[in-house]
Amino acid sequence: MKLASLKEGGRDGTLIVVNRDLTLAVRATGIAATLQVALEHWSNMAPRLNALFEQLQSGTAGDSFVLEVDKLASPLPRAYEFVDGSAYLPHVERVRRARGAEVPQSFYTDPLMYQATSAGFLAPRDPILAASEDWGIDLEAEVIVVTDDVAMGVTPAQAAEHIQLIGLVNDVSLRGLIPGELAKGFGFLQSKPRSALSPVFVTPDELGDAWKDSKLHLPMRTWINEQWFGEAETGVDMQFSFAELVAHVAKTRPLSAGTLIGSGTIANEDTAKGASCLAEQRTVETLRDGKPATPFLKFGDRVKIEVTDAAGSSVFGAIDQVVKKYSPA
Amino acid sequence: MKLASLKEGGRDGTLIVVNRDLTLAVRATGIAATLQVALEHWSNMAPRLNALFEQLQSGTAGDSFVLEVDKLASPLPRAYEFVDGSAYLPHVERVRRARGAEVPQSFYTDPLMYQATSAGFLAPRDPILAASEDWGIDLEAEVIVVTDDVAMGVTPAQAAEHIQLIGLVNDVSLRGLIPGELAKGFGFLQSKPRSALSPVFVTPDELGDAWKDSKLHLPMRTWINEQWFGEAETGVDMQFSFAELVAHVAKTRPLSAGTLIGSGTIANEDTAKGASCLAEQRTVETLRDGKPATPFLKFGDRVKIEVTDAAGSSVFGAIDQVVKKYSPA
Repeated sequence: MKLASLKEGGRDGTLIVVNRDLTLAVRATGIAATLQVALEHWSNMAPRLNALFEQLQSGTAGDSFVLEVDKLASPLPRAYEFVDGSAYLPHVERVRRARGAEVPQSFYTDPLMYQATSAGFLAPRDPILAASEDWGIDLEAEVIVVTDDVAMGVTPAQAAEHIQLIGLVNDVSLRGLIPGELAKGFGFLQSKPRSALSPVFVTPDELGDAWKDSKLHLPMRTWINEQWFGEAETGVDMQFSFAELVAHVAKTRPLSAGTLIGSGTIANEDTAKGASCLAEQRTVETLRDGKPATPFLKFGDRVKIEVTDAAGSSVFGAIDQVVKKYSPA
Repeated sequence: MKLASLKEGGRDGTLIVVNRDLTLAVRATGIAATLQVALEHWSNMAPRLNALFEQLQSGTAGDSFVLEVDKLASPLPRAYEFVDGSAYLPHVERVRRARGAEVPQSFYTDPLMYQATSAGFLAPRDPILAASEDWGIDLEAEVIVVTDDVAMGVTPAQAAEHIQLIGLVNDVSLRGLIPGELAKGFGFLQSKPRSALSPVFVTPDELGDAWKDSKLHLPMRTWINEQWFGEAETGVDMQFSFAELVAHVAKTRPLSAGTLIGSGTIANEDTAKGASCLAEQRTVETLRDGKPATPFLKFGDRVKIEVTDAAGSSVFGAIDQVVKKYSPA
């Protein structure tokens, strides 16, 4: 099934069930007011939500309405935890090569992940607000999964059973602020502001063969100002599965229902597939030409991120955002 | 006023108002079911909660009951954001000196902060669970503040007006896992598991002169296995006020109601005041004797953290936790 949240009803939005084609929806409020609540009672509510999805598919759901993406919040407008990974090692390898550094051997066995902000997610059509273009505004097109409650110390095999939903995230990154923050040694903070999620999240069964071994196997298509930017394969070059990423985070603590785990920017060895973030593109240019040519995002620039299935249909809907200047009140 | 949450009513607990002496309480459910809800409507609900506090103080509140700390969750059993600082530079200076490194000049003007987990806070009497003593289990006694909604780009003066509650946190740290994680460059993850909050949070006005210039000015008393461990002054050697810390975090994004901002472990230049974490104590020993003498926490060890006012009364109640071995199911 496919789930989304309307921008109505409060800070957590209002849960709706969306049909496979992303054309129709029905409020799920008779089952759960919000996606967060549904995830907290997933074993009970998922079957009921799925029954509503089947009714919507068969045209027997009452009160269905035409889906308008502009009216959607992110499926989880806010969450209690978001831990993002960097699971595509071609990205890490290229970035290091560009600055003449080696990739530590441990990076191939120990996932690189960081605690990210989850207090608010931009809606899939919300603008990206930044006070200055000098911040080096960048997209990062990623896959994200959502868990229910996960016990501390789970194995990857156990963790796989707790991946209940899959979606996309634009992990907005401020490249100009990253070197200074990482030099301080405590990771990202100002350099990783709010991210946007895809219009809908889907259950693993909905993906069929495209969800295998706790990895998505579909192209991540990105456009900047309507120009093709990349179509990296999400199932290729992902060093760690989502099950392994979840288990990594849960080593020293339990995870709460509604935890989001991100893959990191999608990157393949094959540079003909394009890139999923400007930092990657600029690194490819630096390795090829000695310097980057593509600038970071400017005010007015538009970013679109979408995954399509074998038939070319949008799976999660598109993240489609314009960069805008922010001025404090 | 003083606020706390009972371990009942669901994942967010049940909001109660607590009297100044921490002996009596009354359910606030007629006003707000949970502290999170109260913070989301703070300008409306704070005056009503305060009126209930005044009734409790004057003995006119109906249905008051004897406060039992064992029945308390953390005031926010979970939150959408926790960003922790490292605002006491004597700690940073000593740790660097012990490894022969300089403190970068920027550390005196640019706060060192990191994104921490907020998905669940241990109750003030919950055990600290760890699978292995080799993780190097440590306490960190800190002050924490809670904001309501804060706009992106606020000044420190504006940020000060959004600090609505003050409390304590035991920022549990796994020292054995920190070097490996920080070497990877993306900050803490496994090495900073769930923290515990103090039994009650209090409003700034409740602190009187002990809350000045967005800093607390009281001793942070800590004990390990009932032995005196430290009484560092929270108002001394704090390089950045909480207003500055909030503004730092809000530079590139808004903060949501219920955001927690931590001070970092309390440390004074004056080592006679003891320490607020074992890493600090071990660093003092290393600088003095060439090597650390005090071990990290073992299973069965007990940690107590409390702030007392000029009259010797507990302000926030005590965090009092025992370390226990965790075995996955």
